[in-house]
Amino acid sequence: MDKNNYIGFICVGNELFYSVANTNVHIASRICELDGFEINFNIIVPDDMDKIISAVDFCMKNSDILIISGGLGPTFDDITREAISRYTGRKLVFSDDVWKEIQQRFKERKIVNIPEKNKKQAMVIDGTSVISNTIGTAPGMMIQHNNRLIFLLPGPPWEFEEMLRNSVMPMLRKSIYHAGGLFVRKGFNIAGEPEAVVEEKTDKIRDEVKNLGGEWTILAKPYLIELWLKIPSSKKKVFDRVEGALKEIFQDSFIGNYSIPEKLAGILEEKKMVCCFAESCTGGLAGHLMTEIPGISQRFNGSIVAYSNRVKRKILKVPRSILRKYGAVSEQTAVAMAKGARKYGKADVSLAITGIAGPTGGSIEKPVGLVCMAVALSNRHIETKSFYFSGSRSTIKIRAALAGIDFMRRVIIQNVA
Amino acid sequence: MDKNNYIGFICVGNELFYSVANTNVHIASRICELDGFEINFNIIVPDDMDKIISAVDFCMKNSDILIISGGLGPTFDDITREAISRYTGRKLVFSDDVWKEIQQRFKERKIVNIPEKNKKQAMVIDGTSVISNTIGTAPGMMIQHNNRLIFLLPGPPWEFEEMLRNSVMPMLRKSIYHAGGLFVRKGFNIAGEPEAVVEEKTDKIRDEVKNLGGEWTILAKPYLIELWLKIPSSKKKVFDRVEGALKEIFQDSFIGNYSIPEKLAGILEEKKMVCCFAESCTGGLAGHLMTEIPGISQRFNGSIVAYSNRVKRKILKVPRSILRKYGAVSEQTAVAMAKGARKYGKADVSLAITGIAGPTGGSIEKPVGLVCMAVALSNRHIETKSFYFSGSRSTIKIRAALAGIDFMRRVIIQNVA
Repeated sequence: MDKNNYIGFICVGNELFYSVANTNVHIASRICELDGFEINFNIIVPDDMDKIISAVDFCMKNSDILIISGGLGPTFDDITREAISRYTGRKLVFSDDVWKEIQQRFKERKIVNIPEKNKKQAMVIDGTSVISNTIGTAPGMMIQHNNRLIFLLPGPPWEFEEMLRNSVMPMLRKSIYHAGGLFVRKGFNIAGEPEAVVEEKTDKIRDEVKNLGGEWTILAKPYLIELWLKIPSSKKKVFDRVEGALKEIFQDSFIGNYSIPEKLAGILEEKKMVCCFAESCTGGLAGHLMTEIPGISQRFNGSIVAYSNRVKRKILKVPRSILRKYGAVSEQTAVAMAKGARKYGKADVSLAITGIAGPTGGSIEKPVGLVCMAVALSNRHIETKSFYFSGSRSTIKIRAALAGIDFMRRVIIQNVA
Repeated sequence: MDKNNYIGFICVGNELFYSVANTNVHIASRICELDGFEINFNIIVPDDMDKIISAVDFCMKNSDILIISGGLGPTFDDITREAISRYTGRKLVFSDDVWKEIQQRFKERKIVNIPEKNKKQAMVIDGTSVISNTIGTAPGMMIQHNNRLIFLLPGPPWEFEEMLRNSVMPMLRKSIYHAGGLFVRKGFNIAGEPEAVVEEKTDKIRDEVKNLGGEWTILAKPYLIELWLKIPSSKKKVFDRVEGALKEIFQDSFIGNYSIPEKLAGILEEKKMVCCFAESCTGGLAGHLMTEIPGISQRFNGSIVAYSNRVKRKILKVPRSILRKYGAVSEQTAVAMAKGARKYGKADVSLAITGIAGPTGGSIEKPVGLVCMAVALSNRHIETKSFYFSGSRSTIKIRAALAGIDFMRRVIIQNVA
């Protein structure tokens, strides 16, 4: 608490599955954390008097600044104003100025008969500074109480974001609460390495970052480890040293701030190559991931999703004998699929993915999660690899698709000048 | 607190912008609230000992059950175990059984050298019940403390969801904490209708539900409107009446509690038909969505992702003259693609999707968001349809894929006996 810049964020609302709350948590963290403040608690709480008061009390004890979104509307279940009034012991008073503003907002929307219940929105907490709402009708409020700043902001994400960014942050930046210790964040991605391996290999550089007062966070995503660094602005040159160290440690696994598909797109662009996929167990997911990248049509011809053996034979021309001898999930079948995709897809390089996504269809020799891959280059160079993925059907699919895309990238790096 | 079924959910993690936290908040609310529990507080808290303990203490005072996700990994910043150990005053002890399970998980992944760090994951809180992790290495834990149940679950959303759904909920349902279902929730899905239309057409039945003390929530998803009802258990028969009313109002657009792909899979199964796709702008997403359904290989042969015109010509045999005369994004090209997919994919019915996902590539006649589709049946019956979708590239892709899958379903219903 010595830093004076902890924010407790409370999101009030009775909504199902919290999609608005989650949006506001995301907005608040983006705006506040990139501006040198830290949100130490995010609390999502229903429109319930006792629960709101409990959450406020908790944040008053643990944070320097409280930002509360939601519950400022005109309807019966909007009770945030009332909750703060009770908690602080300050009365709610009718504000003529606020009422005029609300009337103005309705006028702009060409609404003549203002519902009587909107008068509720002109009730403000005694001693509050009112924050104008340039988009909606609910004004925001700022209250100083027990050495804390409390902000009441509207719940709809676009109104919340506008008021937080353009009214609250400028006030906070000028306040004693802004510690002045601005920091910067940066993310680095590492493909295909287990979290514990990344952790072990980065011991030294991590200590260095921490000794400089930085933070180092590891996030495990499918087939990807994200490292997030937070460093005092004055020391941001350390990012270059971290990047250099990570490159040296992880070599081709280090992909900077790109995603796995973006990194493949980059290498295809660099080598002026066109690729094509043949997918079985991933069902089109590898193609979908590549085509999330705008402009990829120059480098990606398509994907033959050969889910049935019939399509594998008919379109990819996988010989019946190979399917019979080795089975659909085998490196041999993957090779035949990759060859077919490269040829009929008219590509410089192709990737084939065939596996067992489950939950059924596994055996002792070929368990659920086994995925065989092949990458074929136009110089007849072919590489294969088998993976054993764990997880649900969806998880196996996403891991397989990303591992396949990453495998193609590595084969190109190692074999194409 | 008289109901005994309040859950405090704490999401631990130092992640930027809270995307994992938000995902877990969503998962927790969906699973717990559909099962008759209420989450009274969601708290998102960084990997910080004091803050985790404060959040736990707060929930111990306000909820009956604590569910904590995250911070169980093998790395230095995974401190949830330690925090609960300190809070409860129970020691951390090494579990041979858990260590064996972790070794087994590595063995399945063919990893021989288990990082020393992972031993940390075999440390459990004294007196805990261990919950096996069938996907990742971090086991879950259940602790009874001061008349509360505390669950520690892993942070990665797929592991968290699996464990919450399949291990925690069955325990909770059998416990004294399950109030016997004070209310029940049910979701009904409507495909391809705008939110405002659904709202307007459901006026009467919505009022009826509300008059019975129920809640009625509309959630807009891509190409789908979800209606969520919450009703006192004693009145759950009203669900049948709502279902009947929705069926009558929305006819083929009403798809019950199925997703759009599941509903197509159902009709294919019913009619014993096999389908195949030809995708351009969706890049494999339609195939991906279908193959999320276990066992779909009986009904789905594959998808030809013909992203380039070359693949459209070469594999789907779309005549060059059609591409030249009408362009790749046209109903004529969609028809040729659908015919090719049905023939070479050896299917009873095929769907073709071709469009402009953007952000570039649009024109005045063919703007970004235009998507042309065709469905071909084996009796030579072909139907086409064009859509104008708004949104980002990703949004257009997902809307197009779902609209295409839904279009195939409607064509089958209307044309196949």
